[in-house]
Amino acid sequence: MSKNFAVIGVGGYIAPRHLRAIRDTGNQLLVAVDPKDSVGILDQYSFDVKFFTEIERFDRHLEKLRRGPEEGRIHYVSICSPNYLHDSHCRLALRSGADVICEKPLVINPWNLDALEEIEAETKHRVNTILQLRVHPELIKLRESLKKENTVHDVELTYITSRGPWYQVSWKGDHEKSGGVATNIGIHFFDLLMWLFGSVVGLKVYHVDGQRMSGFIELEHARVRWFLSVDKNDLPSSVKVGGKTTYRSIIVSGKEIEFSEGFTDLHTRVYEETLAGRGFGLKDARPSITLTHAIRTAPISPMDELAHSLLKK
Amino acid sequence: MSKNFAVIGVGGYIAPRHLRAIRDTGNQLLVAVDPKDSVGILDQYSFDVKFFTEIERFDRHLEKLRRGPEEGRIHYVSICSPNYLHDSHCRLALRSGADVICEKPLVINPWNLDALEEIEAETKHRVNTILQLRVHPELIKLRESLKKENTVHDVELTYITSRGPWYQVSWKGDHEKSGGVATNIGIHFFDLLMWLFGSVVGLKVYHVDGQRMSGFIELEHARVRWFLSVDKNDLPSSVKVGGKTTYRSIIVSGKEIEFSEGFTDLHTRVYEETLAGRGFGLKDARPSITLTHAIRTAPISPMDELAHSLLKK
Amino acid sequence: MSKNFAVIGVGGYIAPRHLRAIRDTGNQLLVAVDPKDSVGILDQYSFDVKFFTEIERFDRHLEKLRRGPEEGRIHYVSICSPNYLHDSHCRLALRSGADVICEKPLVINPWNLDALEEIEAETKHRVNTILQLRVHPELIKLRESLKKENTVHDVELTYITSRGPWYQVSWKGDHEKSGGVATNIGIHFFDLLMWLFGSVVGLKVYHVDGQRMSGFIELEHARVRWFLSVDKNDLPSSVKVGGKTTYRSIIVSGKEIEFSEGFTDLHTRVYEETLAGRGFGLKDARPSITLTHAIRTAPISPMDELAHSLLKK
Amino acid sequence: MSKNFAVIGVGGYIAPRHLRAIRDTGNQLLVAVDPKDSVGILDQYSFDVKFFTEIERFDRHLEKLRRGPEEGRIHYVSICSPNYLHDSHCRLALRSGADVICEKPLVINPWNLDALEEIEAETKHRVNTILQLRVHPELIKLRESLKKENTVHDVELTYITSRGPWYQVSWKGDHEKSGGVATNIGIHFFDLLMWLFGSVVGLKVYHVDGQRMSGFIELEHARVRWFLSVDKNDLPSSVKVGGKTTYRSIIVSGKEIEFSEGFTDLHTRVYEETLAGRGFGLKDARPSITLTHAIRTAPISPMDELAHSLLKK
Repeated sequence: MSKNFAVIGVGGYIAPRHLRAIRDTGNQLLVAVDPKDSVGILDQYSFDVKFFTEIERFDRHLEKLRRGPEEGRIHYVSICSPNYLHDSHCRLALRSGADVICEKPLVINPWNLDALEEIEAETKHRVNTILQLRVHPELIKLRESLKKENTVHDVELTYITSRGPWYQVSWKGDHEKSGGVATNIGIHFFDLLMWLFGSVVGLKVYHVDGQRMSGFIELEHARVRWFLSVDKNDLPSSVKVGGKTTYRSIIVSGKEIEFSEGFTDLHTRVYEETLAGRGFGLKDARPSITLTHAIRTAPISPMDELAHSLLKK
Repeated sequence: MSKNFAVIGVGGYIAPRHLRAIRDTGNQLLVAVDPKDSVGILDQYSFDVKFFTEIERFDRHLEKLRRGPEEGRIHYVSICSPNYLHDSHCRLALRSGADVICEKPLVINPWNLDALEEIEAETKHRVNTILQLRVHPELIKLRESLKKENTVHDVELTYITSRGPWYQVSWKGDHEKSGGVATNIGIHFFDLLMWLFGSVVGLKVYHVDGQRMSGFIELEHARVRWFLSVDKNDLPSSVKVGGKTTYRSIIVSGKEIEFSEGFTDLHTRVYEETLAGRGFGLKDARPSITLTHAIRTAPISPMDELAHSLLKK
Repeated sequence: MSKNFAVIGVGGYIAPRHLRAIRDTGNQLLVAVDPKDSVGILDQYSFDVKFFTEIERFDRHLEKLRRGPEEGRIHYVSICSPNYLHDSHCRLALRSGADVICEKPLVINPWNLDALEEIEAETKHRVNTILQLRVHPELIKLRESLKKENTVHDVELTYITSRGPWYQVSWKGDHEKSGGVATNIGIHFFDLLMWLFGSVVGLKVYHVDGQRMSGFIELEHARVRWFLSVDKNDLPSSVKVGGKTTYRSIIVSGKEIEFSEGFTDLHTRVYEETLAGRGFGLKDARPSITLTHAIRTAPISPMDELAHSLLKK
Repeated sequence: MSKNFAVIGVGGYIAPRHLRAIRDTGNQLLVAVDPKDSVGILDQYSFDVKFFTEIERFDRHLEKLRRGPEEGRIHYVSICSPNYLHDSHCRLALRSGADVICEKPLVINPWNLDALEEIEAETKHRVNTILQLRVHPELIKLRESLKKENTVHDVELTYITSRGPWYQVSWKGDHEKSGGVATNIGIHFFDLLMWLFGSVVGLKVYHVDGQRMSGFIELEHARVRWFLSVDKNDLPSSVKVGGKTTYRSIIVSGKEIEFSEGFTDLHTRVYEETLAGRGFGLKDARPSITLTHAIRTAPISPMDELAHSLLKK
């Protein structure tokens, strides 16, 4: 039986992937909310979506549906709002009697997870998050092959994704609202690294500014130098020449992991898993949220031989 | 020499066509403003766009550029804001020393044009608008062929473009802000009809509600029955079956005008014309704005034999 | 033991009476929220109020306090937001483990009360509202004296309170958000009338526009002609001459009820009653909300001899 | 002949003083704008004020009045918006053909004054600001007596005005929007000091944080230690004991200047002066804006014997 969805933040950047995932998994969107009213995108999916610009009216409508006939109830709320509102919107959804599929990062601070766990218990509903690299076919293969070994790898993670000045003006540029570069841009990769190489043994942070962060993490099975940036000037010149604006590289013991393809439908894959009861829950989200929080609050270490090569320039 | 552009309303629905037109005509976007900060779309065009969320800060920045070196000045401001803000944003742009390319409808009421004319004269800068059907190749051909005749045609215009409930919640559903269905959805067609068949001799309005309008217009060379709707239930059943959500038909003396192709790059074509000094100015915009205002304020006539066939159902 | 309060809508018009009532009943304000940040008024009461501009962050903070030490918990949430948000804010408050003191009208539609009743039951917390005329000393006296009789009175209620054009621009002028004149301006009086004269037997509405409403209500013990207006032109000329901008009159069987004094501290009186466990709850609020809803949706009756004298002019 | 006024920011904290000054100087308010719609305060002054929530619509209305009959034109625009919007709102007002009375600080950065000077010249209209200490009777007397001397005084300026946490959440707590403590809280005093003691010879800044600033200024006729704070914990204990929340002290060569009285109507006094053609213009505003900008951008000096006594604690 198909499920009824509501979406919070339907006018934002990442919402189209959720709209597509809802449709492509055979379900229907019934309600949506966004403070801005420029949501013509909805017409590409359905002409029957109740739309609100105020979270309070959305909340009331969900409450009304919850008390109404079975077939009109919302089963899932998809959350695509700014990071700092995720946990409040998760609570709203759980209390309306729905399960949640929430964009990453699920929350900014680890203690927000404790509150959500309690409300999960109170409401008997569940929070799921989007950790889409865990469903990427190439990365699943990599994980399988790594499992067979028992080595400690040297890993270099580089992720540079250019953003114009609007980024700093928006909530994404406000550390309190986005969690900063490591949280907003990096969390997928940190989650991936722990999923591949085990839990954190230690960490160092060498550099932090509004546009980039770099550090070192020791995991059970890897020693990782990492560098994250939203500044196009950090792109390797070979990339710039080609006119590309994003550079994504994971090198494991000297070997580049190829995973630039296969990104298209990962949200839909995560939805499929979630709908099948195999979603990524609070427990899955916790390690990367704990790690990015630790990175955000770590003292700055002096440069040493463990620093990422781009930093040394 | 390429031109510097600024865009007002860069986060909205129609902005991508302007961004594309700016790029495809070989010019550059330097400044943008939108009250909402979800404008990641900018990164598809340039990483060097100053972005503001407040019109006042945008205004100040333009003022600073105006007083700065020649090469940094803004030559054109493209306006994609909600209809009711167009004339205020045109004034802002003219006073900053730029020409304007403004989305349709240029303004909601004819008297707003008078004020703009005076400010054009004061500032020696020019307001252009987007009347893209006038650059559509098939419609240009049609016009040429009509010119050679001297008949009065019977014309039926039907335009049904489905919109979900968000439409009524947004500024588009607020008559004071959008001008209502005839102005917001219909203005292109009314402009087209007058461009093809001459000026208005008389009019009747048979029906008005939040989702549809229908009436009759007598032009110099045509008697036009028209029907406009944003309600999917008005779609002819043949269209619905095919899964289409828009129906656009102009029948001239029993013959359907084919113009469903060739819509893709009309904004760019209008930009080309404008940059070449052949833009559509206040004078071009006036007839359709005067007509839609007259339609909006006309009394409702009882149904008669001049009514559109869809109304009679 | 003193109680901890939070206030929703602290920047609005009616908030100062709640701030004063909290202080004058010996309690403390710990948290406040308002979408606008111009809340310097807080400094007149306390320098220790956590302040938020987003309801989501306020919600999160309350959740954190709820899970924290006993002495920091919020016992009461005072709600002074626009009418149409009251019920959503009541739910938020109940779920945060607090009781509610909500401005009138508690909700706009009677069915919103059903939902609140269920959530009261689920949370074991209570919603109280402000029905301040019920604590007005002169009106209490009047009620006592009426109780001794068993007559049916002829009553004329006239309430004209001038509002400038801002009123129509604000949410108060939007029927969907305020409930319109009868709900926003009149609810106190309708509650008072039923409190004094018993429940509704029948009603007529003669006139409705954006600025005034007038009708007739038959109660168990009264036949009431009523007239409500926010247009200064409706003021009796004797009042205008004196420079007054509000006219409030209740005439019971030809005798004017004097109650223009004693309005100052009624909010504080209601707080005292509420804190003592004698607050006005959902049951108390229901009759006037049901009645104003009925008035709002009644057909317009032709004028007859039961109409208010100001209408006949 | 009385003058027509418009007010920008009518819903804010300082607006009531402007509303009162407009009325008490015998003039009338015709138009007002504020993004928030909670402006019931207008009803205390007039029931005939056109009100807008969008600056664009306000701008259009002023443009319409400018082109309408003489008696409806706006002569003065009073600006009470957040500091960072002042210069944009001044430009809007000048271009609408009105003179300006703008709250302090007129602008945040000295170069904004250059742009305003040019637009004054273009429009032949004038910007005035509120420097109300210059019309304070006691301070005028002090200035007269200082003029007769030719000494260099030792001056200690202390201004502590408690603000709750809302201050940091609001635009006032955002340096880019308010200019920070020295600009937002201190500018009156810096203007006063230069007005009394001549222009700046040198300066030092010892301490800056979100709640306080302290430094030293050498003027032609004074050596000034200054300390500004919005933290109630900085209040002298004698003041705290008395329950006061503001402490204002200027000591000139060991003698306390008494000026705590006479603050009530200074806005009205400034309006009178302005209407009589003796307003404080761009030239008057420049020294304090230049000085506070210099303070804001100065390096932090190590403590020395010139530091304010409260700093040494």
